[in-house]
Amino acid sequence: MEPGVARIAVDLLGGDDAPAVVVDGALRAMRADPDLHLLLVGPTEVAGGLVDVLTPAQRARVSIRPVRHAVTMAEQPIQSSRAATTVRAAVAAVAEGSADAVVSAGSTGGTVTAAALGLGRWPDVRRPALVATLPAIAGPVVLLDVGGSLEPRATTLARHAVLGAAYAAVAHAVTGPRVGLLSVGVEAGKGDRLRRAADPLLAALTLPCDARYVGLVEGYDVALGGRADVVVTDGFTGNVLLKAIEGAYAMAGGPPASGGAPRAAALLGVAGTVVVCHGAAQGEDVASGIALAAHLWRRAATTRVATLLTAGPPADCPDRSTHTEVIP
Amino acid sequence: MEPGVARIAVDLLGGDDAPAVVVDGALRAMRADPDLHLLLVGPTEVAGGLVDVLTPAQRARVSIRPVRHAVTMAEQPIQSSRAATTVRAAVAAVAEGSADAVVSAGSTGGTVTAAALGLGRWPDVRRPALVATLPAIAGPVVLLDVGGSLEPRATTLARHAVLGAAYAAVAHAVTGPRVGLLSVGVEAGKGDRLRRAADPLLAALTLPCDARYVGLVEGYDVALGGRADVVVTDGFTGNVLLKAIEGAYAMAGGPPASGGAPRAAALLGVAGTVVVCHGAAQGEDVASGIALAAHLWRRAATTRVATLLTAGPPADCPDRSTHTEVIP
Repeated sequence: MEPGVARIAVDLLGGDDAPAVVVDGALRAMRADPDLHLLLVGPTEVAGGLVDVLTPAQRARVSIRPVRHAVTMAEQPIQSSRAATTVRAAVAAVAEGSADAVVSAGSTGGTVTAAALGLGRWPDVRRPALVATLPAIAGPVVLLDVGGSLEPRATTLARHAVLGAAYAAVAHAVTGPRVGLLSVGVEAGKGDRLRRAADPLLAALTLPCDARYVGLVEGYDVALGGRADVVVTDGFTGNVLLKAIEGAYAMAGGPPASGGAPRAAALLGVAGTVVVCHGAAQGEDVASGIALAAHLWRRAATTRVATLLTAGPPADCPDRSTHTEVIP
Repeated sequence: MEPGVARIAVDLLGGDDAPAVVVDGALRAMRADPDLHLLLVGPTEVAGGLVDVLTPAQRARVSIRPVRHAVTMAEQPIQSSRAATTVRAAVAAVAEGSADAVVSAGSTGGTVTAAALGLGRWPDVRRPALVATLPAIAGPVVLLDVGGSLEPRATTLARHAVLGAAYAAVAHAVTGPRVGLLSVGVEAGKGDRLRRAADPLLAALTLPCDARYVGLVEGYDVALGGRADVVVTDGFTGNVLLKAIEGAYAMAGGPPASGGAPRAAALLGVAGTVVVCHGAAQGEDVASGIALAAHLWRRAATTRVATLLTAGPPADCPDRSTHTEVIP
């Protein structure tokens, strides 16, 4: 655990099984991290139920922001972002400085829209990316996008390659990240129009933190690693892929000892630290999402990735020897 | 094993590790199935090496068609189909009646093009589909497309839904198959433009064999099953998904006891029985591809699926009680 207080705004009503699993996750996170402060965003009776089971010392680390309305999965992102939702209130808490990061297991589209509107986008990032980290054999594999931008252009994939390289270096201390573009084969020219357009763009990029583009990679490389540390794809493919890997681990009798498919992802491209848990998240998933948010905040990951995007100095790239690695 | 001679044309030079793994796979298949006849298509010295290790009785079940040129993975499908390739010669053997089915682990694009040109397409099938069957908890899950058509239109996905339903009934004896469309959530409206366009088309279909459309499904449902027996997606997503599941099983220490991700897929939409093994196929994968081809031929699957496409009589849908289930 890295030192330093982290104040995380938690969307109590986000997720298929909210608020029960969010409350469970918040409790787990509080117990695991003594420097964690939570801002509980949701109905007072839900927040109160959580506070009731805390010790007096833990209660000093909890605040409540009363909000009633949640984003349902069926709502369109743009509609829900106009409503007075829990996720919007949680984002507003970060925007006004009352919290350091947001965690929500509600509708991804609703969270992305709320974050983009409430925190603002980084320059030159047309579409924010959801970034998930999978524990592979030789180290973490950073997969993006996993649902932020379902139909990106080739230029967005190129931008995401830069984002992913910077994130791998800053959040996971990967030195000289290898960046691959997901396709149906590794030979040049394999793939659909989007991949064939993106491949030369990625090859021509100047990547931060001594990252290099290694060309096309395949589905195996996401779970197994070995060929790339960062795998770039569109949000539709990344989302179904991540869930397919999760299904495969369940089918195989459980995830590998190093950890399974992550149920929390970081949102990159907005001016703040935002973590999205998926709708089917359980308590331990929400807890790992809160831990990820705290980790990213303590490492100043969002700010440093944003700096690297604008050709920041090499000093922003961490030296592996001075950083601990955390895969939530 | 179903009775009846099946004559399978095997592309000796297709695949990353050809011809060694193809020879190994052919030997395994010969030993497992006494009614199997093989037409070995490739260099005579390779075929001869295989024949040398057979018993005299086995040799009576082998023929050789000498061809030198293979399709390399880097070649464009249209180029390779113009060359005198092993896969084209294997397809020609089926077209002329010298073999009942083709198996190749070479370039998928090359095999699809060779099959479409050499055997002809079914009416109303714009793009052939590659169909893979995964063993899930409650029975097989038929996934299509896994690489035949990387950028289908919504109408192609609708056609593939019909193909998949018929295939599940005919090849795997699934009664009343449930057909789902792969997307990033199950709520109506989730997904990219292609999925939003295809969803109402699939809902309006008349499906064969008492199949019904169950709406959107997610990545989990491919490996785990439970929600759908047939999962429809574009060939890009299906291909990376299948390989991601394979990678996850390798990462988890091996596939589940019921079987892992298949390395052989049936090509539907051409007038003949064609099985594609993926480029990284090993001997046992090639053997399972040959077994799948023999199974499909013995069940007259291709002909019966084609009949069902043109609103064939319900009699073409098998009754589960009279058919054995085979998942290669």
